[in-house]
Amino acid sequence: MSRLDLLRYFGPVSARLELVEAELERILRSDVPVAEKLAAHVRSGRGKRLRPALVLLCSGFCGARGDLDLRFGAVFELVHTATLVHDDVIDHAETRRGKPTLNRLWGNTLTVLFGDLLYLHAMSSAISGRDWRMMEIFADVTTRMIEGELIQNEVLFRLDTTRRDYFDIQERKTALLFGGCTETGAVLAGRSAEDCALMRRYGLEVGRAFQLVDDLLDYTASSAQLGKPALSDLREGKLTLPMLTLLERAPEAARPLVERIWARGETAPIPPEEEAELRRLLKAHDAFSELRVLAERASGAAVEALQGLEGEARLGRLLREIPGVLLERGR
Amino acid sequence: MSRLDLLRYFGPVSARLELVEAELERILRSDVPVAEKLAAHVRSGRGKRLRPALVLLCSGFCGARGDLDLRFGAVFELVHTATLVHDDVIDHAETRRGKPTLNRLWGNTLTVLFGDLLYLHAMSSAISGRDWRMMEIFADVTTRMIEGELIQNEVLFRLDTTRRDYFDIQERKTALLFGGCTETGAVLAGRSAEDCALMRRYGLEVGRAFQLVDDLLDYTASSAQLGKPALSDLREGKLTLPMLTLLERAPEAARPLVERIWARGETAPIPPEEEAELRRLLKAHDAFSELRVLAERASGAAVEALQGLEGEARLGRLLREIPGVLLERGR
Repeated sequence: MSRLDLLRYFGPVSARLELVEAELERILRSDVPVAEKLAAHVRSGRGKRLRPALVLLCSGFCGARGDLDLRFGAVFELVHTATLVHDDVIDHAETRRGKPTLNRLWGNTLTVLFGDLLYLHAMSSAISGRDWRMMEIFADVTTRMIEGELIQNEVLFRLDTTRRDYFDIQERKTALLFGGCTETGAVLAGRSAEDCALMRRYGLEVGRAFQLVDDLLDYTASSAQLGKPALSDLREGKLTLPMLTLLERAPEAARPLVERIWARGETAPIPPEEEAELRRLLKAHDAFSELRVLAERASGAAVEALQGLEGEARLGRLLREIPGVLLERGR
Repeated sequence: MSRLDLLRYFGPVSARLELVEAELERILRSDVPVAEKLAAHVRSGRGKRLRPALVLLCSGFCGARGDLDLRFGAVFELVHTATLVHDDVIDHAETRRGKPTLNRLWGNTLTVLFGDLLYLHAMSSAISGRDWRMMEIFADVTTRMIEGELIQNEVLFRLDTTRRDYFDIQERKTALLFGGCTETGAVLAGRSAEDCALMRRYGLEVGRAFQLVDDLLDYTASSAQLGKPALSDLREGKLTLPMLTLLERAPEAARPLVERIWARGETAPIPPEEEAELRRLLKAHDAFSELRVLAERASGAAVEALQGLEGEARLGRLLREIPGVLLERGR
């Protein structure tokens, strides 16, 4: 999904998304020169801003007033960025969004500390919003993300990774953050606990669909489309649903292949003949269809959560379209 | 300073310090097995609990009611522990309090994530205290600590480290946390802004004295007394005040010596003849006396800050004695 595609869907909040950018600029400013240097790099590698867009769309849909949606849009984007920064260290990743990663440019120590600083900037900004429920959401989401990373680290390069591990990691690292973004809209609008739960559910399901499609694309898209090498998950030791499916269905063929790829080290490219064999096996054993079914189901559950909610009609229509747009990426 | 010495001074709050331990136990509990494993290791390597003791003593002195002092005592101890955990990764430290470090046992990735988790547990616990001023103190202190670590990382193994760098790092990494602990007492007691500032000043100066003495002990105490190798700061590439003084006074002798030690790598022990030469130079060039003067001055300034404050008499006397006790360690 290109930025332009998304911008079409974020149209109604595109002016406010620019204000989130300004808020991010403000938050990332630092009087510590080394922090400023790293922040400049992060600003230049601007992402899709999917999480702030969800905060703004859901705030508008639920009828939140004031500018706290801008602040929390920036907060969740910073948490997301901090996680990417730490993940790239852990994964020894060299490129992200088509650019060299911070850890490649500045080393692990500085990058870890900078990730810490991004979390703390996010926290300070959240505090200035003066809403205890938002603080709880912020703390809960970030704690679960770190726990997800801990669990992922435990099963890295392990052929005995289970589906339970996979779904647990997906929930903690992606879905709960999406749920936090969408619940924010309801919280800022002062909606009932039931409405907050439905908005959160919407985001959780969108996050599940998003991550499933992301895991699919790692196997089906090209490096150019991804902005990072294809098959990164596998090389980095992460078994996602397609590989878990293949390992269940054709263990005799798949296990030695994965072991060979892992033995070569995570920065080594996969030789063309092994890549071809891997792709042949994935296709022969229909390793993507369960993922597609689950993504469809999550997408449907997201739309369903919205049915029970009243809100601004045009934004509601957009929110109902987004899960489908995410699925489109995987086709 | 042994734990027993301190316990004598913490006598009036020793029962409440045990309650802080229970609070720490509660906070560190996790349903993620890998986090539980790391938490057990941290609990077993229990520190001096200097920071919670300051929170409790200052809360009692200022007349805070309720149990929020227990909660924030635990919060600041967790922040301190999280910083030690991250520092040990950055410094490649192998022992801490006489035990192998987490990074040595479990590797860097897991240890970094576990440090993150400690910060987040501290934050969640702080949030449940429902006091915005405390949230600001918490966020400010932790942000400055990370910035201090970033600055320290920039000047690591650099002979052009300045006194300004040194004092900046000391302020951010140690003194501000102490200031946060002591100000907490005044905040929880609902004292005026002036009283809060004085209590904070008290802790800042205690923290300065504490860190100066710590930096002195790294050069004057034995490995057994420190629970980690002597001369760790120098080997880890950190130039503290004694070495900065020596490098100013005898650059021709000191610079090549430091370069030789650094060239050998931070895990290599310093050969006895180089250690003897280093200790001879430090003595010959009187490299410790400025540090002692500054520590005395900070200690005096701490006591002075308390003069302007009314509070419980017996705890006030204790708080006035603590800076002197810290200086005793350096003698």
